[in-house]
Amino acid sequence: MKVLVTGAGGFVGRELVARLLAAGHDVTGIDTAAGGIPSGARAIAGDLGDGAVRTEALAGGCDALVHLATVPGGAAEADPVASRRINVDAMYDLLLEASASGTCPRVVYASSIAVFGDPLPAFVDDATPLSPRMIYGGHKAMMEHAVAMFSNRGLIDGVTVRLPGILARPKGPSGMKSAFMSDLFHALKAGEAFTCPVSAEATIWAQSVCRCADNFVHALTLDSTTLPVTRAVTLPALRVTMGALADEIAHQCGVSSALVSYAPDAALEAAFGAQPPLATPAAQAAGFAHDGDLAMLVASALSTI
Amino acid sequence: MKVLVTGAGGFVGRELVARLLAAGHDVTGIDTAAGGIPSGARAIAGDLGDGAVRTEALAGGCDALVHLATVPGGAAEADPVASRRINVDAMYDLLLEASASGTCPRVVYASSIAVFGDPLPAFVDDATPLSPRMIYGGHKAMMEHAVAMFSNRGLIDGVTVRLPGILARPKGPSGMKSAFMSDLFHALKAGEAFTCPVSAEATIWAQSVCRCADNFVHALTLDSTTLPVTRAVTLPALRVTMGALADEIAHQCGVSSALVSYAPDAALEAAFGAQPPLATPAAQAAGFAHDGDLAMLVASALSTI
Repeated sequence: MKVLVTGAGGFVGRELVARLLAAGHDVTGIDTAAGGIPSGARAIAGDLGDGAVRTEALAGGCDALVHLATVPGGAAEADPVASRRINVDAMYDLLLEASASGTCPRVVYASSIAVFGDPLPAFVDDATPLSPRMIYGGHKAMMEHAVAMFSNRGLIDGVTVRLPGILARPKGPSGMKSAFMSDLFHALKAGEAFTCPVSAEATIWAQSVCRCADNFVHALTLDSTTLPVTRAVTLPALRVTMGALADEIAHQCGVSSALVSYAPDAALEAAFGAQPPLATPAAQAAGFAHDGDLAMLVASALSTI
Repeated sequence: MKVLVTGAGGFVGRELVARLLAAGHDVTGIDTAAGGIPSGARAIAGDLGDGAVRTEALAGGCDALVHLATVPGGAAEADPVASRRINVDAMYDLLLEASASGTCPRVVYASSIAVFGDPLPAFVDDATPLSPRMIYGGHKAMMEHAVAMFSNRGLIDGVTVRLPGILARPKGPSGMKSAFMSDLFHALKAGEAFTCPVSAEATIWAQSVCRCADNFVHALTLDSTTLPVTRAVTLPALRVTMGALADEIAHQCGVSSALVSYAPDAALEAAFGAQPPLATPAAQAAGFAHDGDLAMLVASALSTI
């Protein structure tokens, strides 16, 4: 089928596009630069807020849209105007334009656990109310309802998936405040010392990028009647401590976990190091999955860096 | 205190502004035409989507903002672009501008039961997920999250109240698909025959405009820590059948209820005539109330037409 992927040159986008191409799909990818989009996809470079870019991407129609492009958390917090322009306005326009064909395309929307607010409540499950504090989470929450509304109107067949921490991101600035989780992988794989900005006891929700891409592939074809009426599910994730994560990475990389020291930053510890127990029965009922166990998560994440 | 009321010349706005003026508050009202805004308020006529109008309204600051102005349900459905412009974009701008003073104003936002979708689920309570279908409900749901986000950031102290059917609206076009509920009052008060477009068995959630204005006055000063983390509550309402409502209006007006005949329209019956059992403990815990009983609701509604 014809699949349009926004953010196709990004961390998750590249993994997803590779899988879609391997499965024989006709893929168009948009990103701010074409360079990161896997060859084999029709690559469109441009700003998602530019109507001409969206028009070019949608030329020829699409059976499905996977909307990954975003101004990420840290960048949105630093520039709320840019977040509103891309994460709200451009996405709303894209939904209107994608639905204009009248073919009710499947739309898979990458939302975030940031919709639950920070700090997170003491327990998160499918009944946890949305109460965002970060700009990123607020805008993601707003657009979850747009996806539900467009779906309830029969204009799109929407699936919103809320992503936990995805491991391991490439090195370098990502605009994500949670980048330290990935930086730990890079340091230990290189045998370098790493100062972790949250404590060893800090708990995070994590999913490998491989598992994440598999979940997006699943989202493209799942029966949407298996979803909650909100169309939104929180993806299953493993809840692990940073200390246990560091030990397992060190073990698999054959280095000493003594390379890791801990110098907790209070703000990061509160925002990303206190992720509470998580239950995701709605996502599991709809066929989504986490990595299985910590060793599988680490092996999978290491395979991509 | 200094209170800015948008939609101040509207049905609910006029009742609210009159109460605020009587209590000695310094009231500024915005509406598309100044004529309906009670004298005593500083009246500003203009389009809420016009930044100059908002700037004029906010000149001198405000301690509280009551945001009633809206492109209503039927009008939003007919013109989704106008709904997006006013119900989403202009409101977001207004929140930014009202919060720019740094004084964390109380913001009371009039949302709607349309956020739950139509048809409504079989039972509605504080745990019912939002799943809008109408443009109006979708945009209201999006902005509920904006109110929560701005509140969680300490920029405003937000209170979202979801309104049921408010009785009795003035005669004439309102843009509300539910206007028939109010038209019944006008017809019987005038001793005229009325053909009701939903059945006698149709169930509606209703609140008098007097009680509604009292609830808005309460929202201006309530302790927001008594609210759910979403900052949103569904206002308490009486659930009544159209037949019982017609009988009580006829009784209080001294006319025969035989003046009312029923010719149900399937779409209206589904959208507005099948309102299920409703529980609103969160609103009641925060001090909001319904009219008490049907006789009190009808007497109150008749007093304003």
